[in-house]
Amino acid sequence: MADDVPLPKQKATTRRDVARHAGVSVAVVSYTLNGKAPVAPATAERVRRAIQELGYIPNRAAVALKSGSTKALALVAPKASDPVFTNPFFAEFANEVESAAQRRGYALYTTSAAQDGADGVVERIQEFAARQVDGVLLLPGAKPIQPAVLDQLGIPWLELNTIHPQAGAGSVGVDLFSGAREATAHLIEHGYPTVAFVGELPPEEPRRLGWAQACREAGLRTDHVLQYPMTHQGGYQAGLELARQGRPRAIFVASDRMAVGVLRALHENAVKVPDEVAFVSFDGSWEGAYAWPSISSIRQPIELMAERSVARLVAPPPHTPVHESFHGTLILRDSCGPHPDSRTDPRTGP
Amino acid sequence: MADDVPLPKQKATTRRDVARHAGVSVAVVSYTLNGKAPVAPATAERVRRAIQELGYIPNRAAVALKSGSTKALALVAPKASDPVFTNPFFAEFANEVESAAQRRGYALYTTSAAQDGADGVVERIQEFAARQVDGVLLLPGAKPIQPAVLDQLGIPWLELNTIHPQAGAGSVGVDLFSGAREATAHLIEHGYPTVAFVGELPPEEPRRLGWAQACREAGLRTDHVLQYPMTHQGGYQAGLELARQGRPRAIFVASDRMAVGVLRALHENAVKVPDEVAFVSFDGSWEGAYAWPSISSIRQPIELMAERSVARLVAPPPHTPVHESFHGTLILRDSCGPHPDSRTDPRTGP
Repeated sequence: MADDVPLPKQKATTRRDVARHAGVSVAVVSYTLNGKAPVAPATAERVRRAIQELGYIPNRAAVALKSGSTKALALVAPKASDPVFTNPFFAEFANEVESAAQRRGYALYTTSAAQDGADGVVERIQEFAARQVDGVLLLPGAKPIQPAVLDQLGIPWLELNTIHPQAGAGSVGVDLFSGAREATAHLIEHGYPTVAFVGELPPEEPRRLGWAQACREAGLRTDHVLQYPMTHQGGYQAGLELARQGRPRAIFVASDRMAVGVLRALHENAVKVPDEVAFVSFDGSWEGAYAWPSISSIRQPIELMAERSVARLVAPPPHTPVHESFHGTLILRDSCGPHPDSRTDPRTGP
Repeated sequence: MADDVPLPKQKATTRRDVARHAGVSVAVVSYTLNGKAPVAPATAERVRRAIQELGYIPNRAAVALKSGSTKALALVAPKASDPVFTNPFFAEFANEVESAAQRRGYALYTTSAAQDGADGVVERIQEFAARQVDGVLLLPGAKPIQPAVLDQLGIPWLELNTIHPQAGAGSVGVDLFSGAREATAHLIEHGYPTVAFVGELPPEEPRRLGWAQACREAGLRTDHVLQYPMTHQGGYQAGLELARQGRPRAIFVASDRMAVGVLRALHENAVKVPDEVAFVSFDGSWEGAYAWPSISSIRQPIELMAERSVARLVAPPPHTPVHESFHGTLILRDSCGPHPDSRTDPRTGP
């Protein structure tokens, strides 16, 4: 079976042969290849010529295994219309995952699926498996992938930032329902009589449910939803609609990314935030901290989620395929209106 | 020599053995492993049990080689205090590089060096070489790495976003000097009598040189430099200094990232942009497009640089180790002051 043949074998040529041919020690050949000690340019040139003439292929995998530096995890993002890592929230998340991996001596390789859907993700995981990566973290795409499909690939995996946990899938995610409910309840505490929802999310999405729950609890209407894409541009369009029409006094915006776009449209139309429209959004990334006015937001515990994800992925098997939910924190800044402790200096960070 | 031993060899167990043990066809074992066709859950379970009992290790590299899906490039970022991909400019750049790679059928794996300096980068390249990646793109760190050190690693490489091209290094980068000169000259055309420089960059850095050149050509002073870190927070500190003291009428800010921080500090101190301080910055990322007021900036031709970098890296050798310089474009928005064509709708994008 072709599947079972070992990797292409080294030809008889060894590092010792190269050393003899170039008239140098074996150590000098090693230094020339691994850069760990300086080698005189003329000597290095002689070594490289010997390598070429003898057709020597250094067994780098063996070198890497020896140096103990082969431990690696992969982070696979979905193929999406809006590139996932140009969203500061995901860039920060990936960065924290990388830090958590490096603290344990693992490199993190990040990549996007080449195509939409399960096929693209499966292809990437197979490539990582072929490259002997120890485990894969997945950011979910628009369509869920069956855990069984991933389990069959023979490489440990865990889903990050999960909105709808699946049975049989190991995953982590923030409690979107509680976060949205808290954000909305906070706006209601300010005394705003209407809180609309901004974001292209279906009624069963937990942020929609949390917002509706808080509104219902306070006797507020739950039918004012501005359905726009979850991007800067989508937020900008929502902001233009808010500027035009009989607007709600307050809004809950489903992501910081959208909130930045909303703010821009309101500025252009001289609608004052928070005096005419107050809002709280979701994610707590730096975007909201440097916006003007700064954006109150539910901060996702990114560091904690990243740390926990990596810890679970690299733990010895068996892995229990459960969903772990984390609580966000309401960061009070300026967009929700004056409040005893609502002023945060951006120097303290998001 | 340990360096020359082949990879740990497969034991005698083959896919055929697994099929026999599980009472299925070899194809079903393959489908269970590669997910390319559905396998009944009970059957898949039987196959997995057989795999476990026999200690079969699929030769995934061979699978991947067979499926022709092993083409890959790597992007290595330096270990920096400010994580590089949380900067929207670098996130956009990495995304464009990934698109350029995928158009040619290559995956892109992105990672950061585990430690600062050449050692960390060399280690990552060696790991990628061990994983049979076809080429490496490098984002330069604080300290330059000798091209000879990288050449010795035996894997094609190219440096992205290069500020100081080195002899013997293949690299691409934007013409920072011309961009800064054009941005500064534009501010001077507005009639502003002083244009200060904002950014922690040494006098020989091309943006500093370009700014100074434009000032000199117009007979303006070139000694007003606000040295703050090239981050949001650095920009914020520079903005606080500008708000406090006898301020220049205009500033050239070395990056959009800083400009967003400057803007925030000026807002807090009720200093009007562009009426009291006008500015142009560098990069042209989305940050500036959604800021209030929107930020005039030199847009780097990210797509073109990404396309060209990948094209050079995957071209058949020999690779000519030259630096290729690209011209930025002045995007006129609101921060530089009223101007016939200075209004850009954010819908048209950055």
